Amino acid sequence: MPSHADRLRALRDQLAKQGLDGFVVPLTDEHMSEYVGGYSQRLGWLTGFQGSAGSAVVLADKAAIFTDGRYTIQVRQQVSAEDWEYVGVPATSITAWLEAHVPEGGRIGYDPWLHTRGWVDETRAALAERGAELVAVEANPIDSVWSDRPAPSDAQLSVQDDDHAGKSSAAKRAEIAEWLGERQADAVVLSALDSIAWAFNVRGDDVAHTPVALSYAIVHADGTGDLFVEPGKVTDAVRQHLGNAIRIQDRSAFAPALNAFAGKRVAADPERAVAAIFDALDAGGARVIAVRDPVVLAKAIKNPAEIAGHQAAQARDGAAMVRFLKWFEETAPQGGLTEMSAADRLQAFRQETGLLKDLSFDTISATGPNGALPHYKVTDESSLPIEPGQLYLIDSGGQYADGTTDITRVMPVGEPSAEMRDRFTRVLKGHIAIDAAVFPDGTVGAQLDSFARRPLWEVGLDFGHGVGHGVGAYLSVHEGPQRIAQPYYPGGQSLEPLRAGMMLSNEPGYYKPGEYGIRIENLVLIVEREIAGAEQRMLGFETLTFVPIERTLIEPSLLTDQELRWLDTYHARVLELIAPQLHEEERRWLEAKCARIA
Amino acid sequence: MPSHADRLRALRDQLAKQGLDGFVVPLTDEHMSEYVGGYSQRLGWLTGFQGSAGSAVVLADKAAIFTDGRYTIQVRQQVSAEDWEYVGVPATSITAWLEAHVPEGGRIGYDPWLHTRGWVDETRAALAERGAELVAVEANPIDSVWSDRPAPSDAQLSVQDDDHAGKSSAAKRAEIAEWLGERQADAVVLSALDSIAWAFNVRGDDVAHTPVALSYAIVHADGTGDLFVEPGKVTDAVRQHLGNAIRIQDRSAFAPALNAFAGKRVAADPERAVAAIFDALDAGGARVIAVRDPVVLAKAIKNPAEIAGHQAAQARDGAAMVRFLKWFEETAPQGGLTEMSAADRLQAFRQETGLLKDLSFDTISATGPNGALPHYKVTDESSLPIEPGQLYLIDSGGQYADGTTDITRVMPVGEPSAEMRDRFTRVLKGHIAIDAAVFPDGTVGAQLDSFARRPLWEVGLDFGHGVGHGVGAYLSVHEGPQRIAQPYYPGGQSLEPLRAGMMLSNEPGYYKPGEYGIRIENLVLIVEREIAGAEQRMLGFETLTFVPIERTLIEPSLLTDQELRWLDTYHARVLELIAPQLHEEERRWLEAKCARIA
Repeated sequence: MPSHADRLRALRDQLAKQGLDGFVVPLTDEHMSEYVGGYSQRLGWLTGFQGSAGSAVVLADKAAIFTDGRYTIQVRQQVSAEDWEYVGVPATSITAWLEAHVPEGGRIGYDPWLHTRGWVDETRAALAERGAELVAVEANPIDSVWSDRPAPSDAQLSVQDDDHAGKSSAAKRAEIAEWLGERQADAVVLSALDSIAWAFNVRGDDVAHTPVALSYAIVHADGTGDLFVEPGKVTDAVRQHLGNAIRIQDRSAFAPALNAFAGKRVAADPERAVAAIFDALDAGGARVIAVRDPVVLAKAIKNPAEIAGHQAAQARDGAAMVRFLKWFEETAPQGGLTEMSAADRLQAFRQETGLLKDLSFDTISATGPNGALPHYKVTDESSLPIEPGQLYLIDSGGQYADGTTDITRVMPVGEPSAEMRDRFTRVLKGHIAIDAAVFPDGTVGAQLDSFARRPLWEVGLDFGHGVGHGVGAYLSVHEGPQRIAQPYYPGGQSLEPLRAGMMLSNEPGYYKPGEYGIRIENLVLIVEREIAGAEQRMLGFETLTFVPIERTLIEPSLLTDQELRWLDTYHARVLELIAPQLHEEERRWLEAKCARIA
Repeated sequence: MPSHADRLRALRDQLAKQGLDGFVVPLTDEHMSEYVGGYSQRLGWLTGFQGSAGSAVVLADKAAIFTDGRYTIQVRQQVSAEDWEYVGVPATSITAWLEAHVPEGGRIGYDPWLHTRGWVDETRAALAERGAELVAVEANPIDSVWSDRPAPSDAQLSVQDDDHAGKSSAAKRAEIAEWLGERQADAVVLSALDSIAWAFNVRGDDVAHTPVALSYAIVHADGTGDLFVEPGKVTDAVRQHLGNAIRIQDRSAFAPALNAFAGKRVAADPERAVAAIFDALDAGGARVIAVRDPVVLAKAIKNPAEIAGHQAAQARDGAAMVRFLKWFEETAPQGGLTEMSAADRLQAFRQETGLLKDLSFDTISATGPNGALPHYKVTDESSLPIEPGQLYLIDSGGQYADGTTDITRVMPVGEPSAEMRDRFTRVLKGHIAIDAAVFPDGTVGAQLDSFARRPLWEVGLDFGHGVGHGVGAYLSVHEGPQRIAQPYYPGGQSLEPLRAGMMLSNEPGYYKPGEYGIRIENLVLIVEREIAGAEQRMLGFETLTFVPIERTLIEPSLLTDQELRWLDTYHARVLELIAPQLHEEERRWLEAKCARIA
């Protein structure tokens, strides 16, 4: 197998052949996906970097890898300092780095299927300032030198039945058609994989942990659609489900189809559709309307069937979590457990439900110092033994046909320290502050974020991530457009108005580098709150996740009466929901865990 | 005196003479000031509108006036519906309205000394979409038909001595020069009036309630400066204070001076310098650096002398407020008071300090339903009698050489209702939540805003303005760049990081339309908070305003122990600071007002 240095050399040779002085390597796919299939892992192949977000730039005599604060340590462990300069974003953007290092007159290549048009415009302007040029490549030069590049997945599509979806694809497409009518538009391009899965009520198995299928789609003003997907992936059942209103075409027919909209008004999402899509629409003479994909908001607001399904999935997943926590509490102090073996045991409990389709993301099974890395992913190499005196953090979730779960709990191994209990209780106070929040319709996530931080701020602490992300319905575990995070959180999702029916995670934390990490995560549903005398429509959260919060980590004297009531009410509901699924011995354990705190 | 209809007709005739199909009339001056001198009150002259923010567009057959939510009612009272269409911003922007109404091929005029370049670019692009043109006028057509237009003020400048300023103008200019050096820039244009006053340690009397002088300035990389101001306004004392490093030039020499920077790098602030300044720099061949005026942040972070001065001004102003509140409590129930007479009485108390230079803004003296208008300004016409059963709200401030104050208090006339006490106490809880907040260095105002709203949200209420604005040091009572407000607050000030030394108002409220208004406003200073075990630099607020908060409006059972302690501590400090300035009888009154609540 060629070394990463060999790969870099091969790429440079290839760039020279293509007449390029440099190339930009993002970590995404043709759908701007957060998680991508193996065939799109070009950054990892080239550099060795295994994180989930990053980019690289290769010039003839210099190469740089760009990662955010989560990966400052990891990138130095995985990527050779001899060949690569480490650059932290957002402090230094790719554009700014290129401006400083591009040779005058240089030609820098990019793959137009892997960048937004906004990025292209900005970078092109920055290079022009330096007399250099940004050039779209016909073929990605990495693919030319990546000899054992995996083929895209050939997994088959499946039908997401109307009972789970809560609305037929025809009804969803009718709503998209109405949306098009309001904009006097003829068609909309859907390129985000989860948007396509939602609009057509299909699922796939092409991306790890996210049940989507590699495809593109176009929905027309008459409610019909084109689905561009490898024909071999479409079973008879799916074909029948899609019906006559959907034309199934080769994935390769998508680009030509974009060329055939001369004079038509076509909507495309500048944040979700890549530059090549806009280029093809322009080249074909379409009048492009740059607007957010209409599925994004529709999908975020769950319908009653999706909500009911999610609740069923949570009850099932909660019982698996309870079994795991009991097992962990009994087993860990005896020694011999590792992060990996614990994660495997939890997965087995989830599989025992008989309904698990997949995990919803790579489990974060982190003990002691690994817990202080919020985005740690356990691997065979990283796995630590779980030892007495540590805090153990487990952040995990399941994909079920009726819902996608995501939960974090922390367990002590033996006796926790007073400091651990203080910090855990402050994180819990923040968690409760979010769960119990009441706020006007139209409030944005950034307006709630600080409620979760205040108990930590009071003693000079904080945590370095947002409070909550949206969650899909048997789709992506991270779903937009809403988010609870600081107002300056990249991407603007924390400025999206919160609406009844949206689901979010509620996951404040605290991380002590080198020692331990704490995070308490439940999922919540936004619901209308009826308040006597209210002068406007008010919203609040309904808790969706029911698994006990470890009582030995709670310092009750730090909790207000209101917070104690919240905790006791929560645990009573856990017992009510989960106990009926348990054996006698498990039930007794759960009863003790859910007893009144104060 | 010509009617407003006559004026509109005259303007349309003038537009025809100048070959224009329309004209845009903002309410600002050549310095993008919030408050402007009489000579710049073109919007009021043309339409009759007396609010502090708005714009108009006049076309040949249509005219529209644009105001925000504060003025929805007022604009309809003051501006004729026969001649004017009322348009609410930001729902409909001027640009959007023009796009919908401009005639194809139309030429719409604007005065380049009254708009930012950003506005010009955006509006020009929107008009181009409709085949129309945005045209800079040489002379403002309103000025041609406004026969009795006031001349700009000829008030003399005064010296702000170094003891009050805390730093000499030479030292301030040396810092600006250093800033220029870091940017390899040759000069910076200062056009915001308060920036100029701060940089040169001068004050003026050209704008109501804001001690600034109509002027422009350029500071060079060697620390010297040009001050463009009518020479008759510069006294010998000011001339001597400015010294040789400052060249005093006619105000009319400013535009030509901008033309003389060929090949030089010149900084100008795109939000504070008008389009004409950028146009002149471009025309002269300067290389323009669009960047925030360096004075903005330097001025916002108060130095020890400014802080000490402000504290002295607050103590003095607080005693005047206490005398007023005592007088009000004793006088109002007898009947006969009006909003106007009460405001006059407060002004007299402030004048009795012997040091009042001016009010810091038009007093909001509002009883009953007028209190529910957050930006109400009392006039002889609007003034209501103050009657039993009402809540009376007074929002006012003074300009002193050592500081600018701004305070709001609410007093009941007789017995307040249970609802009033509930609402007042919730506003107080929000006020305390801000005052007591502890937050990491780098936190932005939008992250604190919700703390003030939460007690109202809990019962379905809210208020329609931000929580706090910056305050100048014997300068503007509204000063950027920081603000505590919702993350989507226009202008982005709520996304400015808060820094130690900044001053802000803390003024949550509640407004019941047609009945009453509540607002509790103190000024606060951002200070570093030493916290044992803190993992980062933490900030908090030090209260600057000390005047009792009316105890008969407080429902103690709604307050937590912590809030009760805050209140008792606050009142103890009021007594300590203000009592020594009072006569025996006043002192006894204050002691009763400051007694422990619980």
